[in-house]
Amino acid sequence: MKTQPIGIFDSGIGGLTVLKELKKILPNEQLIYFGDTARIPYGTKSKELVQQYALEDAAFLLQYNVKMVVVACNTASAMAIDVLKERLDIPVVGVVIPGAKGAVRDTANKKIGVIGTSATVNSNAYSKAIKQISTTETEVISKACPLLVPVVEEGWLDEQATYLILQKYLKDVLQENIDTLILGCTHYPLLQDAIRKVTGPSVKLIDSGSETAEFVKNILAEKNLLNDLARMGEDQFFVSDIPQKFEEIGSRFLGEPLRNVQRIDFDKFLITHQKLF
Amino acid sequence: MKTQPIGIFDSGIGGLTVLKELKKILPNEQLIYFGDTARIPYGTKSKELVQQYALEDAAFLLQYNVKMVVVACNTASAMAIDVLKERLDIPVVGVVIPGAKGAVRDTANKKIGVIGTSATVNSNAYSKAIKQISTTETEVISKACPLLVPVVEEGWLDEQATYLILQKYLKDVLQENIDTLILGCTHYPLLQDAIRKVTGPSVKLIDSGSETAEFVKNILAEKNLLNDLARMGEDQFFVSDIPQKFEEIGSRFLGEPLRNVQRIDFDKFLITHQKLF
Repeated sequence: MKTQPIGIFDSGIGGLTVLKELKKILPNEQLIYFGDTARIPYGTKSKELVQQYALEDAAFLLQYNVKMVVVACNTASAMAIDVLKERLDIPVVGVVIPGAKGAVRDTANKKIGVIGTSATVNSNAYSKAIKQISTTETEVISKACPLLVPVVEEGWLDEQATYLILQKYLKDVLQENIDTLILGCTHYPLLQDAIRKVTGPSVKLIDSGSETAEFVKNILAEKNLLNDLARMGEDQFFVSDIPQKFEEIGSRFLGEPLRNVQRIDFDKFLITHQKLF
Repeated sequence: MKTQPIGIFDSGIGGLTVLKELKKILPNEQLIYFGDTARIPYGTKSKELVQQYALEDAAFLLQYNVKMVVVACNTASAMAIDVLKERLDIPVVGVVIPGAKGAVRDTANKKIGVIGTSATVNSNAYSKAIKQISTTETEVISKACPLLVPVVEEGWLDEQATYLILQKYLKDVLQENIDTLILGCTHYPLLQDAIRKVTGPSVKLIDSGSETAEFVKNILAEKNLLNDLARMGEDQFFVSDIPQKFEEIGSRFLGEPLRNVQRIDFDKFLITHQKLF
């Protein structure tokens, strides 16, 4: 099983920030990435629907005989991780627990902020995870920031409008005197510099991507699933809409060119693989 | 056929601005609305996918024996109107032609601006329509404004950040000295006041909603399909994700409470109605 690939899915492009960190610390692992660009975004949709989409996305990855599924999407992690764990026979790792662990480790004053999509924030997933992990009373202040995903996709990483949007979103969170802020959406690491300018240097930013990569490595090691043999093949990228925009913005995410992204007809996949989900 | 309902679809909520205008001038008609909130937005997706979605949406409406399909979505109108007309046996009306007609009628200096989603703007649909309709040389200056839909859905209709975003998007268009601006997305009428503040009073704003309602009325009259008999039933609203958000934001769009919105399981519909599209 060690040489089998790791499957990763996201509603679209954001999960590439997790994949990038995985490649960094697990260079021997083959990665299969699925971005559901035909149905992006998940963050504005209902729990029921996100759970259904997550099961369908995982079913797609299972075709590639993956040894683990990484849910590289905060919304799907927040809303569907339990359903996925229940239904899949292989380990499933989301980004919420690793992000929450990182924040609990780093906070000194026990006041943690969380920003994410409406779906992630309304689920209270980070808040619940922090309360489970933390051994001392910890306050969690959350804020849904629905405009930040389109801001990143528009490439407005250092615009005056972006700072105004961030100031408006972060005002209440910062007033609570947090010392740690979880970037609870895989798009947000691209806004890290802008966010830091608004929060000031005293607030520690937690990027779920790198936290999750460490977490994945530990789980694989625990289960004796780390690939210490030869790498089986190149990473593969699949999307459910045409790949042009994914390749273009994805290259910005990965910091290197992204090519050979394959489009799959997801409606056809759904019709022919009904028994899988 | 006169008493059959009119079918209207949109990727989500925006089409309600068209429905509102239809109700105003065609109070006798029963309207069946479908908002594809499970797959919203269409404006960032490919032509191929939007055409597929539009055919599926129309297939859903055909189940209700509609006498006409109104594509109350600029993206679907721009990308899929030809495919829909080819495949459907009933009249199909989009929002692009009516909007273009209104702009050609109103421009004095023959310089028309168009704002819309990336998909709408990249399709050049307005530009092509204006050049077909206009009898004199008319310049069209277009600008994709991907952030405006999420701004409307966030309810930021009069925020400082919104004005900054609008200024950034409209700068180049306004420099071209346009006297008419097409609001080429059914979400934008809600930003009409903010847009007017940025353009100044000398630029005439064209709202496809009211233009389309007039257009629909004319087509129905031409084809002797106007309902001059008793109204057959209440308007019906269907969405593909849970209806809470649709009802909440939709009430803002319609300016009156929106209730009894029904959720349909669209993946199930797709699987059981494959022959329709």
